[in-house]
Formats: sequence, C-alpha cells, structure tokens
Amino acid sequence: MTADIAPIAWTGDALRLVDQTLLPARLVHRDVTEVDDLVDAIRRLVVRGAPALGVAGALGVVLALRQAERENWDAATLDSAISRIREARPTAVNLASGVDRVRPFVKKGAEAVLTEALALLDEDIEGNRAIGRHGADWLAARLGDRPLRLLTHCNAGALATAGWGTALGVVRELHMRNRVEVVYADETRPLLQGSRLTAWELEQLGVAYYVQPDGAAASTILRGHVDAAIVGADRIAANGDTANKIGTVGIALACAAAGIPFVVAAPWSTIDPATADGTQIPIEQRDSAEVLSYAGDPVAPPGARAHNPAFDVTPARLVTALATETGVLEVAAGRTPALSL
Amino acid sequence: MTADIAPIAWTGDALRLVDQTLLPARLVHRDVTEVDDLVDAIRRLVVRGAPALGVAGALGVVLALRQAERENWDAATLDSAISRIREARPTAVNLASGVDRVRPFVKKGAEAVLTEALALLDEDIEGNRAIGRHGADWLAARLGDRPLRLLTHCNAGALATAGWGTALGVVRELHMRNRVEVVYADETRPLLQGSRLTAWELEQLGVAYYVQPDGAAASTILRGHVDAAIVGADRIAANGDTANKIGTVGIALACAAAGIPFVVAAPWSTIDPATADGTQIPIEQRDSAEVLSYAGDPVAPPGARAHNPAFDVTPARLVTALATETGVLEVAAGRTPALSL
Repeated sequence: MTADIAPIAWTGDALRLVDQTLLPARLVHRDVTEVDDLVDAIRRLVVRGAPALGVAGALGVVLALRQAERENWDAATLDSAISRIREARPTAVNLASGVDRVRPFVKKGAEAVLTEALALLDEDIEGNRAIGRHGADWLAARLGDRPLRLLTHCNAGALATAGWGTALGVVRELHMRNRVEVVYADETRPLLQGSRLTAWELEQLGVAYYVQPDGAAASTILRGHVDAAIVGADRIAANGDTANKIGTVGIALACAAAGIPFVVAAPWSTIDPATADGTQIPIEQRDSAEVLSYAGDPVAPPGARAHNPAFDVTPARLVTALATETGVLEVAAGRTPALSL
Repeated sequence: MTADIAPIAWTGDALRLVDQTLLPARLVHRDVTEVDDLVDAIRRLVVRGAPALGVAGALGVVLALRQAERENWDAATLDSAISRIREARPTAVNLASGVDRVRPFVKKGAEAVLTEALALLDEDIEGNRAIGRHGADWLAARLGDRPLRLLTHCNAGALATAGWGTALGVVRELHMRNRVEVVYADETRPLLQGSRLTAWELEQLGVAYYVQPDGAAASTILRGHVDAAIVGADRIAANGDTANKIGTVGIALACAAAGIPFVVAAPWSTIDPATADGTQIPIEQRDSAEVLSYAGDPVAPPGARAHNPAFDVTPARLVTALATETGVLEVAAGRTPALSL
C-alpha cells in the first residue's frame, strides 16, 4: 500500500508520527516508543483527525505491551496505560474505538495486537481509496470527464487519516486521472488547517491550488470559478445532515445557489445511525483565545468574547452526494444513509 | 455635533487622526501638520474607510495652504502638494472627491477651505446619523420594537467615516434606544477589521458583542441566533447589486435561507448610477501575503498562492433593505436605486 503522505507509520520499533504542529514550516517525524509520549503527542495535536487517531490508538497498545515487557509492568499497570491512551482526547470517538478494536488481542501478545492494528491502518487507507474512486467516478459522470475546479474546506486529507484522505482522497484520485485543474483551499479559521495542512498536502502532491480566506468561498463559487465543492465530515446523522468544520454550511448554500454539486466524502464509520438528524448533534464551543489572539498576540480588544463553534451542520437537502467506501449516496435527492442502514 | 469615536478631528492647528494601525491594542492620536506626513498616514492606513478619507483629504488641503504660507511655496508647489494628497490612495474615490470639493476655495484662502472641509465632516456625520435613524426605524417596524440580535461584517463604523458610522451607525441608534441585545462581529479575514476595529468600537460604546470567525456567520444565522444582518457598502450599482468586503454575499445567502433581513447601510454617494449592475464592478485582487502570512510569519507552505479578492458582490435580490440618509429602499422587493435616481 503506497501512501506518500504517511502521518502514522510503524517502524518495527516505534510509532512514527508527522508532527502536525510544525507544518507547514517544517516536516518533522517523531518516533514514539513510550505511552506517556504518545498521550502527550495526541493531546498536543502532533497527530489529529479522527481516523488517524484510531490507528494511533491501536498502535499505541503495541507500544504499551512492549513497554510493559521492558519495564516488567503488572497487569493493572498495563491496563491503566492502555486506558490513558484511549482517553487522551475524550471527543475523538475513533481513538477509543481504535484501542477497543485491538484490546481483545492483548492476551495473545504484542505481535497479535500489531497485526490487528496494521490491519486497521490498511483498511483505513483502502477505504479512503475506495471513497476516492467512487467520488471521482461520480464527479466525472455528473460533470463530464474533464479537469475540474474544486473547492475544499479544513483538512480532510492524508494527515487526518491513516494516509490517503477522504475529501482530499477524491482530489488525489482525480489528480491521478489528470482531472484536477485547481483546488481552492479555504484557510479555515481559527486554526488554519486549510492553509497549514491542506495547502501543504496539495503542494506535496503537485496539485495546483489557491489558499483563500473563508469569506471568499461563497463569492468564488457564485462567480463561476468552481465546478464542485468537496469536504469531509465529523458526524453524519441518519437523515444525511452532516456536521463538519465551521464554515461548511455556507459553502453548501453557495453551491445550491450556483447549481453546482456539494459533495461530502466520508467512511461509513462517520455515519451515526443513533443520531436521527442534525439537531441532535452537539456543537463543541472552543476556547475564545483561538479567535481573539494569534500566536499569543491579541487581535481583539481586552474584554472581547468570541463565538467559536468548532462545527456546523449542513442540512441533508444541501448534500448533493455522499461518497463512501461502498459507493455514492445522492442524499439531497432522497437517498439518505438511513435507507441503506 | 457629538461623536465619541472621532477618527478625524481638527484641533485648530492640526489634523488629529486615530492611528487605526495600532487598534485595538492602543488608542493613539497623531497630530498631522505637514502634507508629507498626511500622505504617509493615508498610505499606511492610519486613516482608512472611504468617507473618512474624503474628510481627511479636504482637511489636508488646509494643511497644504498653511504649510505653503509657512514655507513660502509658489503656486506650483502648492498645487503639486494638493495633488499628492488627492492621489495618496488611487482606489478610494472619496479621497479625490473630498479634495475636489474644497479645491475651488483655495483661492479664497485657508479659512475658506477649512469652513468647507468642516462642512463636509459635519455633513458626513449628519448623513450617517440619518442613515442610523432610518435603518433603526425600518428594523423596528419590520422586526418589532424589541432588543435585536444583529450580525455585521468588516468595519462600517465611526472609524470608517467622519465619526458616526453607517452599518454601526444603525447599531448605535438602536443601542441608544435600548434595542440591541448582542452584535455578532465577523473577524473579517484577512485584515481583521472586525476583531480589531468593530469590536473596539462596540467595546467603547458598551454594546454586547461576540467576535466570530467569518466561517461561523452562516451557521449563526441558520441556527436562529440573529434577527438581522447589517453591513456597509463600497459601491452600489444602479440596480441595487452591492459590492462590500469579501464574505458579505455568504451572509446574504444565509439570511435569505433563514428568512431574516439583510440590510445595507450606506450614503447616496456610495451609489454609482454609472454602474448598471454588479457585473460591471471591478473586484480588487490584493496581495497574497495578507492571506499567507500573519505578522510576517508564514501560515502556508512555500510556493502557496492566495486568491485574495477584497470585495464580493451581493445581488440586489438578496438586499432586503438599503438604508440611506433619505430613507430606506426595499431593494429585493423591486425598489432599486435606479428608480430613485
């Protein structure tokens, strides 16, 4: 399995992570062999993105077993170490599910856990590549087999997954087919995942792109510069309502006004059958400091408060297509995930 | 005429400017008495905003006349100094028109020019206050006489004018009537006029506000947190299509989807009868560095290009109301400026 941008790799002795806090200025890999260092790396967002965290959690259990052997831990110490990895970030459900997936193999030893963790890594990349093919096929069928001008928001690329990407996985597939003219990458305030991470990935891949302020997205679409928008998802309700990085629903409205497809690319694991619709998706309100200061310097007056929701919800009626590893659902046309569950 | 926030004042000897490059960290006034210093202040955006530049240009002619007297300039030197003020920023049409308005008085001397320049300053504030009253009356009639939750973008406040504000002038009028619950101020990337300037003005005025990332605007509106959006304008076409800071049209789309009013507040001088519609409004593409770096530090990879349009165009069908100094035009309902010209 090739994956040029590998945010997570297993060296044989260590979990090798791209330090995403240093991108795009520097590409630094960190080799992690101890549980405490992994927990710290997850908390500091050295590794981020729900699918990526799942794989890091699973491989983290291998690290815990090896450290237990080196340091003669008893069973209780090992169990507590694994739980600390599992809970390093409470909101990322994939981290817990990645740990849970390999935990049954702990009694068989580190090699059995490693095999299962690497299977999860491969499945994630395979799933992403399938999403990419289905999404690219759908776009080609809908828009014609020609180079496309695409718009994306935040980072749903290799760095957020085991190594291929969801929304950017579709872009990569189209790029391999010579069917990408240019990508407009929203910078994605407040944390700039678009300008820092998506732009960096597109640069690595040799895809032509522009970084633009988030406020430019609607106008870029309405002026006819974009053939389709494609984004990832953090949670998809059974009816197709989609939570994604703040700023996404404005793009969906502009796509509807311009009559171009708004495409969500995500694995089935993102779809939550227990969430009936978007009103049931809790929206995380993040720290004001992310908005009110930059690199520690204030950009707003003392006393300012910020409204800083991390996500918004795009209603199903605006989701033209949902590209998954098993195919594309035309959600706005009525093919909701609930019908396929 | 009271104006708590006076970006431009005449001290009797000098043009006193609020240095807008230092806000919100520090409120520093700069007394300008020489033409070269004024030209520098305009170029460095110490003073900014189309109406503010008009008044600064007109008072600048007074400075030129006094300097000519002190330094025994000949007529050609004086004329060239006035032209340098007029052309300090080529895109701000108000700067040239402010200078042109007082130029016929040059032959009558500095006092005559001063009288005319101060008349322009007073007219701008009076006009803004009338816009504020008309806008506030319209909102109260439309939404009910109750505290409103408003959303604004960029800075169309006192700092952009002679001292009252257009969009924020409506907010001030409503605040005087105790009819503002909260204002959501978009931070307005890339130059952050919202978090730096609008938040600072609202803080001075004692209006409750949140700063939010531009990407949050659509979601804040769609989730029912906003009763009306109100913005300024850089140019309004005869048919009502409105150019304003990049990010504005996305707000207008969200207002339409949510069924709330999208209000533009601007003086008649902003309406250009020679521009039939928005397709004829040229969109300034600004320097990539504004998007790709922050305070000199890169936030995107080397090689990145930015798409950095300064303005977008909101189609007339999305402009619920245009508040001017003579009243409110319900543009989307068919009452275009062309019908009143």
